Amino acid sequence: MSTNNIFFAINPATNKPLHGEFVNASSKQIDDAVNKATAAFNSYRKKDNQQIANFLEAIADEILNLGDALIEKCNLETALPIARLQGERGRTINQLKLFASVVKEGSWVDARIDTAMPDRVPIPRSDIRQMLIPLGPVVVFGASNFPLAFSVAGGDTASALAAGCPVVFKGHPAHPGTSQMVADAISKAVKKSGMPEGVFSLLYSNSNEVGEALVKHPGIKAVGFTGSFRGGKALFELANSRPEPIPVYAEMGSTNPVFILPRALKEKSKEIASGMVNSISMGVGQFCTNPGLSFVQKSEKTEDFYKLLNTDLSKVSAGTMLTPTILKTYNAGLKNIATFENVEEIAVGLVDNSEGAISRIFKTSMDNFIKNKQLSEENFGPSSVVVEATSKKEILDAARNLEGHLTATIHGTDEDFEEYKELFDILELKVGRILINGYPTGVEVCHAMVHGGPYPATTAPNSTSVGTNAIKRFVRPICFQDYPDAFLPNAIKKENKLNIWRLVNGNLEK
Amino acid sequence: MSTNNIFFAINPATNKPLHGEFVNASSKQIDDAVNKATAAFNSYRKKDNQQIANFLEAIADEILNLGDALIEKCNLETALPIARLQGERGRTINQLKLFASVVKEGSWVDARIDTAMPDRVPIPRSDIRQMLIPLGPVVVFGASNFPLAFSVAGGDTASALAAGCPVVFKGHPAHPGTSQMVADAISKAVKKSGMPEGVFSLLYSNSNEVGEALVKHPGIKAVGFTGSFRGGKALFELANSRPEPIPVYAEMGSTNPVFILPRALKEKSKEIASGMVNSISMGVGQFCTNPGLSFVQKSEKTEDFYKLLNTDLSKVSAGTMLTPTILKTYNAGLKNIATFENVEEIAVGLVDNSEGAISRIFKTSMDNFIKNKQLSEENFGPSSVVVEATSKKEILDAARNLEGHLTATIHGTDEDFEEYKELFDILELKVGRILINGYPTGVEVCHAMVHGGPYPATTAPNSTSVGTNAIKRFVRPICFQDYPDAFLPNAIKKENKLNIWRLVNGNLEK
Repeated sequence: MSTNNIFFAINPATNKPLHGEFVNASSKQIDDAVNKATAAFNSYRKKDNQQIANFLEAIADEILNLGDALIEKCNLETALPIARLQGERGRTINQLKLFASVVKEGSWVDARIDTAMPDRVPIPRSDIRQMLIPLGPVVVFGASNFPLAFSVAGGDTASALAAGCPVVFKGHPAHPGTSQMVADAISKAVKKSGMPEGVFSLLYSNSNEVGEALVKHPGIKAVGFTGSFRGGKALFELANSRPEPIPVYAEMGSTNPVFILPRALKEKSKEIASGMVNSISMGVGQFCTNPGLSFVQKSEKTEDFYKLLNTDLSKVSAGTMLTPTILKTYNAGLKNIATFENVEEIAVGLVDNSEGAISRIFKTSMDNFIKNKQLSEENFGPSSVVVEATSKKEILDAARNLEGHLTATIHGTDEDFEEYKELFDILELKVGRILINGYPTGVEVCHAMVHGGPYPATTAPNSTSVGTNAIKRFVRPICFQDYPDAFLPNAIKKENKLNIWRLVNGNLEK
Repeated sequence: MSTNNIFFAINPATNKPLHGEFVNASSKQIDDAVNKATAAFNSYRKKDNQQIANFLEAIADEILNLGDALIEKCNLETALPIARLQGERGRTINQLKLFASVVKEGSWVDARIDTAMPDRVPIPRSDIRQMLIPLGPVVVFGASNFPLAFSVAGGDTASALAAGCPVVFKGHPAHPGTSQMVADAISKAVKKSGMPEGVFSLLYSNSNEVGEALVKHPGIKAVGFTGSFRGGKALFELANSRPEPIPVYAEMGSTNPVFILPRALKEKSKEIASGMVNSISMGVGQFCTNPGLSFVQKSEKTEDFYKLLNTDLSKVSAGTMLTPTILKTYNAGLKNIATFENVEEIAVGLVDNSEGAISRIFKTSMDNFIKNKQLSEENFGPSSVVVEATSKKEILDAARNLEGHLTATIHGTDEDFEEYKELFDILELKVGRILINGYPTGVEVCHAMVHGGPYPATTAPNSTSVGTNAIKRFVRPICFQDYPDAFLPNAIKKENKLNIWRLVNGNLEK
């Protein structure tokens, strides 16, 4: 551990430390948290659906009970506007309630029953039953850009707790006060719901050491992470090098390419320009799904489109970013883009805040884009690169050359779609979500959402970190053969007491 | 590639090469196979349910069409008895047909639809749809011990093809002739079903280089493997070190601990001894689920039990193992066990075949077992270690100290189960399948089977390599937002044309 053990939250609007000190977790605290989580797991995983659902709902209630104080603290620590934070709190609470409803309903455990065939020849068939069970204690890393919805009581925590896994949370140093308040709310919910104490712990840290120690701890059985590619990859490698490798669900962001097809550009350039500018600059561009890259096909309309982008972007204020470091990195990224030849700035936001991040849109040719791989990399913040293709072939080739992304978007008319049919096919293999005539920011929390995608967008393309399917990350199937009914979990007992959907001899039934 | 490019199958019964030479795949052949698979993927993944089901059924038919010639070739190459191979062929064919039925039914894609809410405030909800799609070309490694059911047209191939993934198969050098015949049968089925040529390729090799090159090839998107811990772990590390890491589904065997509780030992020692001996020696012990370890609690009945084991085992012939190397490794393992102090041989099979593997059962104390970790390791073949505990606590502690295994088995009476309740809980966290009063060998191919388990039994505890759920290894979810209906896959179009189960706004419906 670092000898400099104390840190403070920084107010990004003033660059000054806020009141209240936080102490980096010690090796002993890390060990205690994991050991308590391991002990808690034994009773927590046996709680029934209703008990776990109540617990999740109690967390939601206790967060709401924190009232305006939470929003104010969070605003001071992140510079995110009050209204945005109120919205994010709503999202966080609804997310907890949605997982509560999934747990209450109960069918998510994928119960499968193949009944015995004692008279089968040549060999009788045993009674065989399968369901999903929780993996064990999970370490979750909070993200800076969603201090509520992707932090202490965010999607990873909610889905892990819903699955029956205790959570050891590694708080993000950019909002430790917010983290503390939410962790206190969870603690209250733990007590009120009669849950074992170690089912949730928050550890503070402003360095990598605590997180690394947690991922290496033999008691930890899975990792949830939202953040940078570098951070996610490091944890993935660490987890795979353990004596017992464990899964790492790292969502590492992407540039979320947008394809604006010719007829759409012609017919709806004003609407698309305004939508793009809004999506690029929203929340000072601090979203994993921020559209950092778009492709247009050169026509007599492209210059007009660039002007429209500039008209809209020129009204966007320079916003305060989440941390001084994020701002510094963003500005370094802008400087780097400026060093490339044949990259032109086509739109710029207001320069009305010397400490803020100025929105900028650049343009380059497809040739230049292909030559300079760096132009395709994420620069976290309100900037974007428009790549100008000269033909349909160039557009399709660009799509073929994409790495994995969280999303891709196509703007087009019905005729565009017919002409660019192939683009749909290509993008299916590149991303977790494809949007038509929309904007990638705004990730709906629902049953069908996929917030994930092929590497390097995530380390686990077969999963989502948003939506009810996120619960599946923290479980594994187990099979019970010829079990006494009394010893079977309720989900797969002879009588369907939970009234859940079960696959019985291949047929789904209730 | 090795300069010594040619190899022959060895008849393990004579230790002599069989007629027919095989050539190690060259770099060019590897590249060609993967590139063809990649090209085939584009059309194969668009085939409809019925087409893929027909293809799987055609493979089954063509294998059956090979007639006795296949069984005879396989018997020569593996020394597995004709009757066993006929049974294994049946299993292979039924497995293909079971996957065909899953594909035909269609619900396995986990279709999820959240319909648009254009009037929702403050933000409308988009139309959001999710389903599973295939990952791309998969490399599958054949196992030596199931030359049909876990080889060329075995479970990994069947589930990958069912998922919509082309397969490049790395044939096991212990049965190249069998592999060739089955690959030819698949080729016929490819032609008859109108499938793209590259959807399946077989590559020969008697070294690790071909497999390594396949796993490193950027066109490969997942790995299926059944074999040794060393082999599986090496591929896992290789796959994770790629620029784009890919999932490795390696089933690496285990010792499948059996717990024989006191009352069961008292009341059913004869039946259990005979069952254990059968399970230990069946197929010359060459099963991943072979019970290599059992725990009993010392009582006035244990000595009788050991005598019964010896009585039964003394009638078991020394069988020919799959390859001379496997026999050598087995005998080295036996020698190694003999070097431990306080390890006693309590049962031995017939010494009736100087080239065969002699079945042996050893006994040791719990103390000694804990001191010598090697005693808990798999010795592939017909040997097993009985560990004698002195108390219930020792039994439970032994269970707690287990690593991950494919299976665990409990033999007990109802009273035993009451007394050893905790054992059930402990084992749930250690294995993929728990059997009551049965024997772990014999893995039913059905919907509820889990042939998997925590590391080091597998590299992917969240999966099974046997049973219909195996299809889920080779897919990932994708989400379509506000898609034109015509461009959606059939499974998630507005109209439920496939008549599959879909989760619509959280409710499962047809």
